Amino acid sequence: MSINVCIFGVSGYTGSKLLYYLDKHPNVNVAGAFGDSSAGKTLGEVFPNLQNCSDIKITDFKKFNFNKIDLIFSCLPHGKFQESVIKMLNPKIAIIDLSGDFRLDSKKDYENFYNCIHKSMKLQNKFAYGLTEVNRENIKKSKFIANPGCYPTSILIPIIPLLKEKSLKIDDFIIDSKSGVSGAGKKAITQNLFSELSGNFFAYGINKHKHYPEIKQEIDTINNKVSLTFTPHLLPVISGIQSTIYFEKKKKLSEYKNVLKEFYQNEYFIKILKDSDIPTLNNVKNSNYLHMNIFSDQSKKRIIIVSCIDNLVKGAAGQAIQNMNLMFDFNEQESLT
Amino acid sequence: MSINVCIFGVSGYTGSKLLYYLDKHPNVNVAGAFGDSSAGKTLGEVFPNLQNCSDIKITDFKKFNFNKIDLIFSCLPHGKFQESVIKMLNPKIAIIDLSGDFRLDSKKDYENFYNCIHKSMKLQNKFAYGLTEVNRENIKKSKFIANPGCYPTSILIPIIPLLKEKSLKIDDFIIDSKSGVSGAGKKAITQNLFSELSGNFFAYGINKHKHYPEIKQEIDTINNKVSLTFTPHLLPVISGIQSTIYFEKKKKLSEYKNVLKEFYQNEYFIKILKDSDIPTLNNVKNSNYLHMNIFSDQSKKRIIIVSCIDNLVKGAAGQAIQNMNLMFDFNEQESLT
Amino acid sequence: MSINVCIFGVSGYTGSKLLYYLDKHPNVNVAGAFGDSSAGKTLGEVFPNLQNCSDIKITDFKKFNFNKIDLIFSCLPHGKFQESVIKMLNPKIAIIDLSGDFRLDSKKDYENFYNCIHKSMKLQNKFAYGLTEVNRENIKKSKFIANPGCYPTSILIPIIPLLKEKSLKIDDFIIDSKSGVSGAGKKAITQNLFSELSGNFFAYGINKHKHYPEIKQEIDTINNKVSLTFTPHLLPVISGIQSTIYFEKKKKLSEYKNVLKEFYQNEYFIKILKDSDIPTLNNVKNSNYLHMNIFSDQSKKRIIIVSCIDNLVKGAAGQAIQNMNLMFDFNEQESLT
Amino acid sequence: MSINVCIFGVSGYTGSKLLYYLDKHPNVNVAGAFGDSSAGKTLGEVFPNLQNCSDIKITDFKKFNFNKIDLIFSCLPHGKFQESVIKMLNPKIAIIDLSGDFRLDSKKDYENFYNCIHKSMKLQNKFAYGLTEVNRENIKKSKFIANPGCYPTSILIPIIPLLKEKSLKIDDFIIDSKSGVSGAGKKAITQNLFSELSGNFFAYGINKHKHYPEIKQEIDTINNKVSLTFTPHLLPVISGIQSTIYFEKKKKLSEYKNVLKEFYQNEYFIKILKDSDIPTLNNVKNSNYLHMNIFSDQSKKRIIIVSCIDNLVKGAAGQAIQNMNLMFDFNEQESLT
Repeated sequence: MSINVCIFGVSGYTGSKLLYYLDKHPNVNVAGAFGDSSAGKTLGEVFPNLQNCSDIKITDFKKFNFNKIDLIFSCLPHGKFQESVIKMLNPKIAIIDLSGDFRLDSKKDYENFYNCIHKSMKLQNKFAYGLTEVNRENIKKSKFIANPGCYPTSILIPIIPLLKEKSLKIDDFIIDSKSGVSGAGKKAITQNLFSELSGNFFAYGINKHKHYPEIKQEIDTINNKVSLTFTPHLLPVISGIQSTIYFEKKKKLSEYKNVLKEFYQNEYFIKILKDSDIPTLNNVKNSNYLHMNIFSDQSKKRIIIVSCIDNLVKGAAGQAIQNMNLMFDFNEQESLT
Repeated sequence: MSINVCIFGVSGYTGSKLLYYLDKHPNVNVAGAFGDSSAGKTLGEVFPNLQNCSDIKITDFKKFNFNKIDLIFSCLPHGKFQESVIKMLNPKIAIIDLSGDFRLDSKKDYENFYNCIHKSMKLQNKFAYGLTEVNRENIKKSKFIANPGCYPTSILIPIIPLLKEKSLKIDDFIIDSKSGVSGAGKKAITQNLFSELSGNFFAYGINKHKHYPEIKQEIDTINNKVSLTFTPHLLPVISGIQSTIYFEKKKKLSEYKNVLKEFYQNEYFIKILKDSDIPTLNNVKNSNYLHMNIFSDQSKKRIIIVSCIDNLVKGAAGQAIQNMNLMFDFNEQESLT
Repeated sequence: MSINVCIFGVSGYTGSKLLYYLDKHPNVNVAGAFGDSSAGKTLGEVFPNLQNCSDIKITDFKKFNFNKIDLIFSCLPHGKFQESVIKMLNPKIAIIDLSGDFRLDSKKDYENFYNCIHKSMKLQNKFAYGLTEVNRENIKKSKFIANPGCYPTSILIPIIPLLKEKSLKIDDFIIDSKSGVSGAGKKAITQNLFSELSGNFFAYGINKHKHYPEIKQEIDTINNKVSLTFTPHLLPVISGIQSTIYFEKKKKLSEYKNVLKEFYQNEYFIKILKDSDIPTLNNVKNSNYLHMNIFSDQSKKRIIIVSCIDNLVKGAAGQAIQNMNLMFDFNEQESLT
Repeated sequence: MSINVCIFGVSGYTGSKLLYYLDKHPNVNVAGAFGDSSAGKTLGEVFPNLQNCSDIKITDFKKFNFNKIDLIFSCLPHGKFQESVIKMLNPKIAIIDLSGDFRLDSKKDYENFYNCIHKSMKLQNKFAYGLTEVNRENIKKSKFIANPGCYPTSILIPIIPLLKEKSLKIDDFIIDSKSGVSGAGKKAITQNLFSELSGNFFAYGINKHKHYPEIKQEIDTINNKVSLTFTPHLLPVISGIQSTIYFEKKKKLSEYKNVLKEFYQNEYFIKILKDSDIPTLNNVKNSNYLHMNIFSDQSKKRIIIVSCIDNLVKGAAGQAIQNMNLMFDFNEQESLT
């Protein structure tokens, strides 16, 4: 079986990564690609190493015939998709949206943190949150997926099993995350120039980052008494996210580690490192893996979890492919290994 | 007035940075330089852009006549200086040691965290801790200075004024620090190769870093009930340290900021940024400044301080120059601006 | 059909890249892996993302039973393989050597440029030079392959077709090449540290680089009257080689381009860019492609060819896989696309 | 004696570097600063580490009173200055223009290579070409300086003495240059984003770069029979230019080297390295030095010169300061060492 897919925002970093995986997927036929900055060119002209879909022309979606399309991926920046695009689409076609447009249940949070009006809020409850390993059954049954943010993926996968284990009594997280530059997209802005970022490092969005309410919302569904501090930082690397997660130690280290091991024991893409091995960006780069390990600090009062993903893969395009594979009953790992 | 100085370990990253400042200091005459890897060469051959001391030969200190030397800088890796070198030196000559050999009062901590035997422990109490802005009066009176570690400098300068203000009731710090690679020195080890680190990022020494007991000791002298979690990470940049410091918010943000502003109001090298400006590595690179700012997190339950220094300058050679300037009654900023 | 292979020097950059391709090759069973620095561990412990061969233990080749081995890859540094290892191997087993040990016909050149004695020179003439697209028929028939150097691959593929076309009368090349750091291998030497190379750039081996006689030898087989100037430079990137090749323009630009297009018209991995598109390292990274294009300079007196490859793939492991595929009659592109 | 200066385009990379040197110059008072992107702010707000001129406000030059100004620096991108700005200035005020607007005698070349109309061509012959070490006497007498381009500086300093020595009979140069990204300025364009350039490398402007006619013009004034091939490349580093220069060897290597040594024997900022030491970007970074050395290639048929400068210092702001020092009879090295 084979499906026809199309991509909005194909020329950005997420869009082109997604295209790379779709191009080699045996059950996928890339039938359409839309993008302002490269409209008129073929995919092969923009991405010279494609194997199968290099002849597809990048067009204006308004002139595209969606009749045979089974699945739409949107890699548009947040705002654009919910504001206008989604209303023009045939509601029978499945959607995986990689922006933050349909992740938040609260209109107020969306408008406050994303700084724009939400004009399709009534569609919100049709979207399942696509955190694959945590929400697999829901994803399988859903037609519309809000693919998780990159920071939330690196954070929620480690903490959700621990939060669900009530005996661990976790009530407070401090999360210090560091992301590669591609997470900011391909916008031409001075602050993302090579000369500004090479050799540099800094925190940003300290008390108001778009991913804060997303992480908080998913924590709240398990325990809304938990407090959250989240500080993102910008690393001078192209891709990769590392999150260092701190919380109070109330049990032996092994108990926390066992909860994680059990929860993810059958998960191909989640690796809990052994002993005191430390996850690194290098070991997850260009892969759909999340690597994590868990430690006790020197004071014996705190637990530290370190997790690493590639923000463009497990944190975006890779997880989107994983979700597509679930939705269409393909092998979940197809084209990702 | 002019003094004669010599440097142990001149060819490492700290040693060469120190030499750069000494070379242009109007009150300093570089009279000797010792270093294994470049012995026999002149300083000018190893460092082509020196102005004044390029003809000094790098020699074996055992054959050097220390008679006219006023001050010795040691940039040797920890262990070497306390194990053997210091015993061969004339005890009348002043010393600024940039290693960790004489920072810790506890022999046990030193041997546990530095993984080597301390053979000059009875000299320990002659050394003043060279955290300039905090310990200035002591440094002025001392003949022997243990120059602080780079991480501790980035951390203690922000937190000591707050700890001293008892009404803030701080009892617990979580500190997430990130350092450039030069902090690891110039040793030829696989893990510090360009191909291993470029594009990479990871935590290390999670529950056993050499700088942990140094930070803890300085906190303890103010309040030994305070708990400390400290996680260092390696950044793919040559120089710079950023520390993100978390603790419980018990007062209004402005009260914390005012304590810092007052404590450092006359300090040339300590900048507390205004509003919610965020410190960056770029803004402190190649300077002796520490930049910091203080924030409240989204949950309003925590205070976040971000501080940045150049690990080779304020975190090592620059602070050593500042201490020398104090000890010999030169202008404290001489050659540092 | 499936073959058993083993790898010498598996833990270096070339060895691990080769392993990555072998691991996913449907006709290959990795049966042995040898390497000093990681002996005793399994491949999975050293390379956490392997799919199939992660249980293979890294051992000492002297204790290994080669009975069932069909093909040996050597990723040892030059010298080691010819000096001792090759003599202990069963001469019936096929070999692909990725070092420079069996590329040069001239013992004198080898010893002069590689700075070591050649002790297996009588085996030299059994080795075919593995420049796949140029020497395909020879490679198919050979049991022993000297896999080309990275610089020579980036240079010979563009120039050989032009040299063979006698009417172009090329008699002189100036070649300015730039290579990523991984080309220098994983040796722990100070000059390859991150702090030495990040932000740096320089020429090296200006008049005595190991790859000079290799390029010259291959040119000489076509026309030994051609003169060659070759200057390698070190780029602050992990992988990739770019060569800028200059020679006198004696015909119209299109005549040169047509020669190249015709020669490589059926080659999957050789891309001659259209119009005046310029090859970039990014477009060949992690691929077995060589991208090139050809230009006339402003003075209209010279032709400039620019070529790019990934030094670890087309310049080493990828071309080795391509050669293996030819030798064992697999699909030439197998596991490389 | 002290002069009042003002800067156009202060917030770009060249402008801010220039400001750094002017700020510490004992004979200079920065009296005005103009720049679109940071208008309204003080210099201290934009550049936090300034010592003396941090209170100067960045304004609109049209509202500025130039009465007391002795010298204007223009760091505007090419085009802007000649098109309109220069006509509004009092012609009695000295100017150092760091753009390419007044470097070319040929209107046709300017308009062809810079792709814009020249509207102040009659002012062209008032400008002296500011290649300090070559054109010092002219610069001293001139009121208007066209500061050289970064590539031309790295190339002309090595080749001019050799061209002037007619007995060397040089008639042809091939120049392969590599520049850091800051040379492209601070424009927010996609191709200069960190994610596009980190780990990347490529040639550009292969047969039509703005600096080609500038290099050619200066060569022609000595010998207009010399042919020139010039290929610039973009390095993934912030600052630095390396040029590798090739020409036919007709004499012994030492004869070429002696010509260079003699020509530059009294020059503080020009270093001809000894033996076969190779210049590196690291050794000239943040300095006004040009490092070069000269080699014979393996074939003994060609001479290779390698030169390195910091494109923002000797290639722009540093050389501008050197020229100002000459024009106003200050110590030529003032504030540059």
